[in-house]
Amino acid sequence: MAGWEENIRRVNPYTPGEQPQGKDIIKLNTNENPYPPSPKTIEVMKSMDFGSVGRRYPDPNAKGLVGALASYYHVGTDQIFIGNGSDDVLSVAFLAFFNSEKPIVFPDVTYSFYPVWAQMYRIPYREIPLDADFRILPEDYESENGGVVIANPNAPTGVALPLTELEKIIRSNSDAIVIVDEAYVDYGGDSALRLLDRYDNLVVVRTFSKSRALAGARIGFAISSPRLIQVMNDVEQSVNSYPLSTMSLLAGEASVADEEYFRERIRDVLRTRARSVIELKKRFFTILPSETNFLFAAPTRISGNEMFEQLRERGVFVRHFSSERLNDYLRITIGTDREMDVLFAAIDEIQE
Amino acid sequence: MAGWEENIRRVNPYTPGEQPQGKDIIKLNTNENPYPPSPKTIEVMKSMDFGSVGRRYPDPNAKGLVGALASYYHVGTDQIFIGNGSDDVLSVAFLAFFNSEKPIVFPDVTYSFYPVWAQMYRIPYREIPLDADFRILPEDYESENGGVVIANPNAPTGVALPLTELEKIIRSNSDAIVIVDEAYVDYGGDSALRLLDRYDNLVVVRTFSKSRALAGARIGFAISSPRLIQVMNDVEQSVNSYPLSTMSLLAGEASVADEEYFRERIRDVLRTRARSVIELKKRFFTILPSETNFLFAAPTRISGNEMFEQLRERGVFVRHFSSERLNDYLRITIGTDREMDVLFAAIDEIQE
Repeated sequence: MAGWEENIRRVNPYTPGEQPQGKDIIKLNTNENPYPPSPKTIEVMKSMDFGSVGRRYPDPNAKGLVGALASYYHVGTDQIFIGNGSDDVLSVAFLAFFNSEKPIVFPDVTYSFYPVWAQMYRIPYREIPLDADFRILPEDYESENGGVVIANPNAPTGVALPLTELEKIIRSNSDAIVIVDEAYVDYGGDSALRLLDRYDNLVVVRTFSKSRALAGARIGFAISSPRLIQVMNDVEQSVNSYPLSTMSLLAGEASVADEEYFRERIRDVLRTRARSVIELKKRFFTILPSETNFLFAAPTRISGNEMFEQLRERGVFVRHFSSERLNDYLRITIGTDREMDVLFAAIDEIQE
Repeated sequence: MAGWEENIRRVNPYTPGEQPQGKDIIKLNTNENPYPPSPKTIEVMKSMDFGSVGRRYPDPNAKGLVGALASYYHVGTDQIFIGNGSDDVLSVAFLAFFNSEKPIVFPDVTYSFYPVWAQMYRIPYREIPLDADFRILPEDYESENGGVVIANPNAPTGVALPLTELEKIIRSNSDAIVIVDEAYVDYGGDSALRLLDRYDNLVVVRTFSKSRALAGARIGFAISSPRLIQVMNDVEQSVNSYPLSTMSLLAGEASVADEEYFRERIRDVLRTRARSVIELKKRFFTILPSETNFLFAAPTRISGNEMFEQLRERGVFVRHFSSERLNDYLRITIGTDREMDVLFAAIDEIQE
């Protein structure tokens, strides 16, 4: 064995959903937006001066996008941190804030990247079980810890924690940083942003990958106090000076400018979600209440895995998690009405 | 003091060169390419279907770009790692390979991000002084260590280490991973790629930011054995599943396809470099031999800092490092001939 073998870091990488190619595929497996980015965003990409955009380094302060987000959310520009997708934002936050000997805590059923970062950065962690209805109970988060991470609404369940409940967690952990991952909040959850003025231990994380239809551009951000944002920027600047391409910065800025298109597409998804709940219930699915752009739904006629495999054979991709607690369920992204109709027809065929 | 304060990571961020805006500015401070990306790359950006590129996640395996690089460098697709700029590639390599109690080693004068990553990831390190002529001496790298990082050609000096000398370092450190950072190698250095077959401890890191004029797209890559590339991919997938935007992946792939344009622009820079050496010597500068797209040059009539400040006042940006060993020098990126003429005229005015 080579001497360097013993110094290699052992990790358990996160497994992202498949990205199958092909025209006839119905892709409901990674919670992408079924609608394209706004026409104005597409226009900005088409008309950018790529001769200059390409050869020059990006603005290391991302002034354009930071300014757009600050004014959109009515916070200072020193309260916005920009990262290379919310995965990068969360990774930086873990590195920046979780340096205690005490374990950080998060639910046992949540975004499965949290334990990956904790292991990666050698942060002790403890997973706190959701209750029987897949709910987060604030009283479970009162023990001493090195930090808290709550996805709200949660994934892959889609269940939202009311803001009054979330506030209890933030309040009872005033000595630790509480990260609230709001990847899906634009689809109906209550944002913790309004608590920022009251708590100095709160970091809210957002993404452009879902409601803003820019998963391909890799844009995430955090909103917090100037003090905590400074810490995150210092950590980012100790890893990568330019985490986002100039193309992504331009796309993000253009997206924020087009509020009407943004609201309309969210309404479209919510309408299709409501309809999909009805259609899936007709087909004997058990469905958790969703405040996201996906449904966590269990077929009752056949197993979750069987349904997953049979849908896959028919070119319909949804997400299935094989852990015991989750394996009855499928996480189904809300697509267009047409895409959902293909899904329903495939389910009918499978259950016939 | 809030309880969370003690758990915040203290870091010393890297300071990138300024990105001043303005039409009349001559920007020779961050080693960007003075020429735009190839016309074919610009065309790919203009004609991409951003509706789909934007809303979909990137290919997590980056198959298009990985395939293009593998065939360009005549290696397997399992020998290519893609990252978000070579900073991300290096950061991942540090995390992946440098987990020894023994210090990693690199020159005292080199890319100043190396000690930043080491501190960030709590990797012990030792800086080995260059000799009086700013050269790396292989015999200085024979002591036991936890890994080696060599920028070749080195920065900010521009000096290249002959491949036979570099090979001594790789050979005498067979129990540690040796990272060779070849950010500037396309401008004249000898690449360590040809040593890959002989050494299982070698990782070669490259960037699209210099010779490929894609600093704004943030693309870096590593070439090594399938085993070490797998380790790097596992670490990357434990931090961020999709480190590059689809736009960047497309731009990178298009760039690799246009060999003729690439070679021509390198020749242009080399011609301007040769001419710039002559012009600066006429103006009493001491210049280190450069195999890069920049010159490390010391004015002898006034101090390095004075020259830096006076150029800056005239809208000509170069890079100045304030450490004692480097502060006589300026790092001057090779621009277009026209840009260099503005620099020479400004120097004449300052030294008049």
